[in-house]
Amino acid sequence: MPEKLELKHEVFPQFEAAVGPDTVLASNTSGIPITKIAAVCERPERVVGMHWSNPPHLIPMIEVIPGEQTSQATVDATSELVRRFGYHPVVEKEVAGFVENRILYAILRECLDLVDRGIIDPEGLDLNVRWGIGYKLAVIGPMELLDMAGLDIYNAVGSYLNPDLSTSGEVSSTIRGLIDEGRLGMKTGGGIYDYTPEQIDALRAGRAAKLVAVRKALEG
Amino acid sequence: MPEKLELKHEVFPQFEAAVGPDTVLASNTSGIPITKIAAVCERPERVVGMHWSNPPHLIPMIEVIPGEQTSQATVDATSELVRRFGYHPVVEKEVAGFVENRILYAILRECLDLVDRGIIDPEGLDLNVRWGIGYKLAVIGPMELLDMAGLDIYNAVGSYLNPDLSTSGEVSSTIRGLIDEGRLGMKTGGGIYDYTPEQIDALRAGRAAKLVAVRKALEG
Repeated sequence: MPEKLELKHEVFPQFEAAVGPDTVLASNTSGIPITKIAAVCERPERVVGMHWSNPPHLIPMIEVIPGEQTSQATVDATSELVRRFGYHPVVEKEVAGFVENRILYAILRECLDLVDRGIIDPEGLDLNVRWGIGYKLAVIGPMELLDMAGLDIYNAVGSYLNPDLSTSGEVSSTIRGLIDEGRLGMKTGGGIYDYTPEQIDALRAGRAAKLVAVRKALEG
Repeated sequence: MPEKLELKHEVFPQFEAAVGPDTVLASNTSGIPITKIAAVCERPERVVGMHWSNPPHLIPMIEVIPGEQTSQATVDATSELVRRFGYHPVVEKEVAGFVENRILYAILRECLDLVDRGIIDPEGLDLNVRWGIGYKLAVIGPMELLDMAGLDIYNAVGSYLNPDLSTSGEVSSTIRGLIDEGRLGMKTGGGIYDYTPEQIDALRAGRAAKLVAVRKALEG
């Protein structure tokens, strides 16, 4: 369903009319506050955000976001459902973008700033992040990493490095330039990189296979 | 060797006196510009930064950073050496913190801001990032991810989300509070989390085994 509040306000009461009183009503929205969707429902306590990570058939983590009136029973039932199909539920409070996208956009802001400034090229950046950060964070979370490194060390480095990081609220000039040229990514045959249709198929299949193999290594 | 410029200025000329004229002199420094170290050398063109990622025996990525006078031959020889022992070299320009740490600190800034504000607890944050971002970025780099999602989509979301992200130059209040309590991480038996000595041993061994298994899955 498109991310339009009017549309959600139209269908959620229809859902309520069709289901029993205890049925959980979950929305995958990433842009609309759950509290606003629940506002037109008779039982707002059973409305909850259930945000899948893209690509949803491969990333086994789902953000569970209660609105202001969502009951603990609804949060628990949703988390239990996620666990039952082998995914990891993460409960968080409502915030613009939700946690995963905020962190991803913070990463992209700094990455693109480094590319905009010519510090590193896109290929080098991807190699650096895949092996230096992705690989590490797949096994060790950021809070676990801080405890490993030592909070005093983080404080010493962060005190000079944090003020030097990008604080831009704008979208990178590299990205805006590419959009102006009509280069929107894989779907137009090129964005930051160039792609033939055959390469796109091979990349999709190769990445999916790698994700499956890594998940087995992480959970096995 | 400690991260002190005077010390490096003392030993680099000693190294030069001991080796042949073509020998590359590399430093693992992450805090001192290579150009400054090379300034006291007779052949600054052979001085280069070679920054390992922590833990260095497990993370197969090394940043190669030429100073202002470093020759292309020195950069090439260093990259080739890295490739020969099976690691991935990434060449980048000099910048405070280098690329990997800048991106890591940008991640930590946003993560800790979300924890400081009570949006998510440390356990949930780690679970979210391990599966939602680490796992994904281990396979698909940030630039590749942008091309997959579509640069127009990134522009649309970034236009409202980027201005909402943390821009703090300060170190998180959660971290400063823990430091005040003497909780510095694993080395003091507790930081963000608590640890017994047995748990620390088990965590270290478990994480190392997982990193090795994931690397095999990524490279296999």
